[in-house]
Amino acid sequence: MPRVGIVMGSDSDLKVMSKAAAMLEELGIDYEMTIISAHREPDELIEWTRGAEGRGMKVMIAGAGMAAALPGMCAALFALPVIGVPLSGKNLDGMDAVFSIMQMPPGVPVATVAIDGAKNAAILAAKILAASDEVLLEKLKAYTAEMKEAVQAKAAKLDEIGYEAYLAGK
Amino acid sequence: MPRVGIVMGSDSDLKVMSKAAAMLEELGIDYEMTIISAHREPDELIEWTRGAEGRGMKVMIAGAGMAAALPGMCAALFALPVIGVPLSGKNLDGMDAVFSIMQMPPGVPVATVAIDGAKNAAILAAKILAASDEVLLEKLKAYTAEMKEAVQAKAAKLDEIGYEAYLAGK
Amino acid sequence: MPRVGIVMGSDSDLKVMSKAAAMLEELGIDYEMTIISAHREPDELIEWTRGAEGRGMKVMIAGAGMAAALPGMCAALFALPVIGVPLSGKNLDGMDAVFSIMQMPPGVPVATVAIDGAKNAAILAAKILAASDEVLLEKLKAYTAEMKEAVQAKAAKLDEIGYEAYLAGK
Amino acid sequence: MPRVGIVMGSDSDLKVMSKAAAMLEELGIDYEMTIISAHREPDELIEWTRGAEGRGMKVMIAGAGMAAALPGMCAALFALPVIGVPLSGKNLDGMDAVFSIMQMPPGVPVATVAIDGAKNAAILAAKILAASDEVLLEKLKAYTAEMKEAVQAKAAKLDEIGYEAYLAGK
Amino acid sequence: MPRVGIVMGSDSDLKVMSKAAAMLEELGIDYEMTIISAHREPDELIEWTRGAEGRGMKVMIAGAGMAAALPGMCAALFALPVIGVPLSGKNLDGMDAVFSIMQMPPGVPVATVAIDGAKNAAILAAKILAASDEVLLEKLKAYTAEMKEAVQAKAAKLDEIGYEAYLAGK
Amino acid sequence: MPRVGIVMGSDSDLKVMSKAAAMLEELGIDYEMTIISAHREPDELIEWTRGAEGRGMKVMIAGAGMAAALPGMCAALFALPVIGVPLSGKNLDGMDAVFSIMQMPPGVPVATVAIDGAKNAAILAAKILAASDEVLLEKLKAYTAEMKEAVQAKAAKLDEIGYEAYLAGK
Amino acid sequence: MPRVGIVMGSDSDLKVMSKAAAMLEELGIDYEMTIISAHREPDELIEWTRGAEGRGMKVMIAGAGMAAALPGMCAALFALPVIGVPLSGKNLDGMDAVFSIMQMPPGVPVATVAIDGAKNAAILAAKILAASDEVLLEKLKAYTAEMKEAVQAKAAKLDEIGYEAYLAGK
Amino acid sequence: MPRVGIVMGSDSDLKVMSKAAAMLEELGIDYEMTIISAHREPDELIEWTRGAEGRGMKVMIAGAGMAAALPGMCAALFALPVIGVPLSGKNLDGMDAVFSIMQMPPGVPVATVAIDGAKNAAILAAKILAASDEVLLEKLKAYTAEMKEAVQAKAAKLDEIGYEAYLAGK
Repeated sequence: MPRVGIVMGSDSDLKVMSKAAAMLEELGIDYEMTIISAHREPDELIEWTRGAEGRGMKVMIAGAGMAAALPGMCAALFALPVIGVPLSGKNLDGMDAVFSIMQMPPGVPVATVAIDGAKNAAILAAKILAASDEVLLEKLKAYTAEMKEAVQAKAAKLDEIGYEAYLAGK
Repeated sequence: MPRVGIVMGSDSDLKVMSKAAAMLEELGIDYEMTIISAHREPDELIEWTRGAEGRGMKVMIAGAGMAAALPGMCAALFALPVIGVPLSGKNLDGMDAVFSIMQMPPGVPVATVAIDGAKNAAILAAKILAASDEVLLEKLKAYTAEMKEAVQAKAAKLDEIGYEAYLAGK
Repeated sequence: MPRVGIVMGSDSDLKVMSKAAAMLEELGIDYEMTIISAHREPDELIEWTRGAEGRGMKVMIAGAGMAAALPGMCAALFALPVIGVPLSGKNLDGMDAVFSIMQMPPGVPVATVAIDGAKNAAILAAKILAASDEVLLEKLKAYTAEMKEAVQAKAAKLDEIGYEAYLAGK
Repeated sequence: MPRVGIVMGSDSDLKVMSKAAAMLEELGIDYEMTIISAHREPDELIEWTRGAEGRGMKVMIAGAGMAAALPGMCAALFALPVIGVPLSGKNLDGMDAVFSIMQMPPGVPVATVAIDGAKNAAILAAKILAASDEVLLEKLKAYTAEMKEAVQAKAAKLDEIGYEAYLAGK
Repeated sequence: MPRVGIVMGSDSDLKVMSKAAAMLEELGIDYEMTIISAHREPDELIEWTRGAEGRGMKVMIAGAGMAAALPGMCAALFALPVIGVPLSGKNLDGMDAVFSIMQMPPGVPVATVAIDGAKNAAILAAKILAASDEVLLEKLKAYTAEMKEAVQAKAAKLDEIGYEAYLAGK
Repeated sequence: MPRVGIVMGSDSDLKVMSKAAAMLEELGIDYEMTIISAHREPDELIEWTRGAEGRGMKVMIAGAGMAAALPGMCAALFALPVIGVPLSGKNLDGMDAVFSIMQMPPGVPVATVAIDGAKNAAILAAKILAASDEVLLEKLKAYTAEMKEAVQAKAAKLDEIGYEAYLAGK
Repeated sequence: MPRVGIVMGSDSDLKVMSKAAAMLEELGIDYEMTIISAHREPDELIEWTRGAEGRGMKVMIAGAGMAAALPGMCAALFALPVIGVPLSGKNLDGMDAVFSIMQMPPGVPVATVAIDGAKNAAILAAKILAASDEVLLEKLKAYTAEMKEAVQAKAAKLDEIGYEAYLAGK
Repeated sequence: MPRVGIVMGSDSDLKVMSKAAAMLEELGIDYEMTIISAHREPDELIEWTRGAEGRGMKVMIAGAGMAAALPGMCAALFALPVIGVPLSGKNLDGMDAVFSIMQMPPGVPVATVAIDGAKNAAILAAKILAASDEVLLEKLKAYTAEMKEAVQAKAAKLDEIGYEAYLAGK
């Protein structure tokens, strides 16, 4: 039973949003993923979002660009946390989506992550689940430790070979 | 039977949005006006918006601030024109609402007017109705003529009394 | 007799603005389309715009970039609705055009659509005409239904083949 | 044992951030609240944040303005969800804090809410806890229902007395 | 015969724009000043602007706010220099007017000054006239010398009484 | 004897600024052009700018990017009009240069043109000279007439061959 | 002999810039402070700045608003560090000054601090001097310790009396 | 013993930040350079930064993008000057990093340079060291003289061969 739902407004969002799916897989978290346009399929959105709690969903990740109504409408219809991913498009570097997702009115929050931050949305979803899942919490701590080691390895390499060789080798 | 609907997301929007009502009254256009929050009352929004065509509504004016999903969701649910009024709030001068209303995806346009431009939304609604209403078209032309005369009267007064007296008399 | 006029400030705008023409054709709406620069041809603009009502025009679509005076001047001269399309250029992502088109003073509204949103301008024009044209209204509803089905088909495909195959096949 | 921690960078943030505390109280959620400046007390920040999990904390709410490093540093040190509240100050309407909080690098998400959105931060914290707390989930659903009723009451009043009386009575 | 024309879009612009008139008076330059709305009085604008050269006008100062089409339309209709003054309003700090005035297309420049910079517009107009008027050029140099002395006097006073007394005496 | 001076802060500005030179040549206006960095050559800047009036210069065109101090410093040192061209660079689309050039303090105006608007700077310089040069004024009117005809020719072509052929032939 | 110079473009900057003076006094650092307008007194600026090194100055603090050329011109003329303070004014929240000060070209850096951050400019100047002044370094460390204690005292008070009493007592 | 430390948040910053290293080498200044992520390695950051003074470091250069906490946290932990380099990334042109670095609270300044201005960070570091190092001060003056000559050579070449040949030869 999927504990996380990923929804996006268009299949043009899939390239970025699939990073959320990949990250959830890496952490061993079941998810369902679909495409629903808030502005083109309001009934489908309501049905899918209202049914989510019954399907076992604990967190929802919603990504959209431009006048990104999807995350906010999910938050209106789903009682548990909704994470919003503002997506950049041809113009405005995603600031239209940031404002459409982040500036929610009192009572209906969306947890907004960085522009195009689908991977972080998945990690945030995992942190939310980890609040009541010790095993997942340990996995997240291990992931954090790995990230630290990856940076340390890069620093060690830079120290060893110097910046010119480092840049040449990239 | 109201030909125009005015909807806003909160009663804190009423001070600005009532200017749309006053303008419609001045032009003799029947309207209905209500408060529906897209994020707090999704079902009410759908019911009101889906029923609008049957109630005779030809144009909808939707005003909202911040992550202003209301105008776009109206446009998703109402087949005729939706005019969006981005409202300024405590921060950002209404730019959050501008992006949330104007940047609609292909297929679902919202006719966006100026920030806090509720009066212009009413005039735009009247122009839309006037496309098939000769009497209203004449009223609009008369209104335009009055606006012109008002500016001319101010220019004449400025010319007559000079800028110091003009500013002192304001 | 064309019911919609499309005007743009430069032939460099044609690539985007032709999407409005194509959409009107798809909906079977007669239109006329031309290039008039507000700043280089003020007399031509006045003549073309003032004559539009007599030529049967019910809605005007005006696209321009930078200090985009064209849509506002059309709205000053044409009593029926004017839709403005802010066009992006080399710098500023179209925000210069957004402000020049959207921020109209009281009395002279322009119905602003998304940056480079020429297709939506055509759909908005159709919605305006549909307020008094039942056949067109049905066409628009059919178009909306098709859009919904297109998204559903994509969602079904994603569900069937998974995101990796979906992205590989794009 | 507090399940939520509220931390802010300065006592000048308390006026806004206390709304988070008040909302948590309304929902019956235990919390601890303190003031820690990331830039003035890095050791205290580390101690408080690293100890939070052991004190039973499941979610952290961090509010800060300007170059708001606090929420991100909390997210670096606390394995469970961190909610960031960007606070507006004398200049820039809180956009400095938005970018400092929202634009986190991959691996270390902060759940950003609206500018000055402390109340929504508390509701988001409650939603996170509700993922494993049925009683709280029911309280949140009741809160949502009350919000809906409050808007409906306002709409009914507007319908009954008209906008002039409504505005006069505010 | 006035060598400078001052035109503004609304009498709400007069408080700022009158500073241009006062500065021209200080420099002994004849001017005419009026109010013409580009969007409400296109014919009057054309008549006034086209007639300006015949009335002896050598430079035009045009101030407007929001979607400020006035300066650009003046530049389209008047062969000599047009100076544009972007005016700030309730929202956006005048950035809407800056973009509407400054971002003119090739062939039709507007000389844009600072937001609300009506005084500088007058000085720029004087500099333009001074290119062929030695007496005015000397006046401008004297004005520049006076400005320098005014700053030097303030610096001397600060040096003499210290910043606390200086601030107390303001 | 050059009546116009063109100065830029770096030879990386030459590609854009040379359009001013080309336009002046087209209008038959003598000019001198050089590279002086305000921040790297303050003495050279003062010498060149202070000597400009003596060399017969009536207008100065100064182009710079980023923290573009050059146009403002020219205006501090040259008593006749200075036109500023804000240049776009790797980041910020030229907005850093716009603010550095346009937002001059009272007393020291710079006539700011569009971002990268070197051609318009030359036309504005010509308009300034034309205030006392009838022959040049006629040339400018002829140039304006040619621009109009060029747009009309494009409109005629579009009307004749349709948008698809027009776009294909570009 | 003053080791720090404070210069500002106008006496309207004194209210903010005097905080730099007060902070330097608190740290026991000699300074000189004056008003010089880069755009109104270029010669005075050059004389004062070029003479600074000879007068013993090791760091310069330059504050300015709008098209803030002063800090950059100081950096062009003074071989030692220049700290720039962008000042907010009537419009734009100081962003015009930020871009004019921060975006310096390669070779001529200005150390930019926060908008209206005069106090921090003084502390940064002290840190620069402390690189070769052990006594001052100890003073700075003591200042940092005091800041930490001040925040801790506020946190303790909040913990003791609760947020309602705390806010009531402000 | 290195007098300057260069630290960056990720090896993706190395391409820009290595320009600081190259500039320090050109000026003959010893430095150490490493990669430490404030959000992924808080303990390493504290250890490295706290130990810097003991290792002889007099100035620190910290470069980061997005929610750039690194420079501010370095300033919290290191008593001597910290120079911040805001780095541009995929979106927002580095404005997220500018706000995260520049808008530091009172008491903890960061000396912010231009977006991607790593070379200027190195020169600023050298200026800071030069406050107590006469030899380095002479080197900086020589570097400034060379920059001036380089611009003069370009101006001479432009004067000699004309802009067309100059642009062709680039």
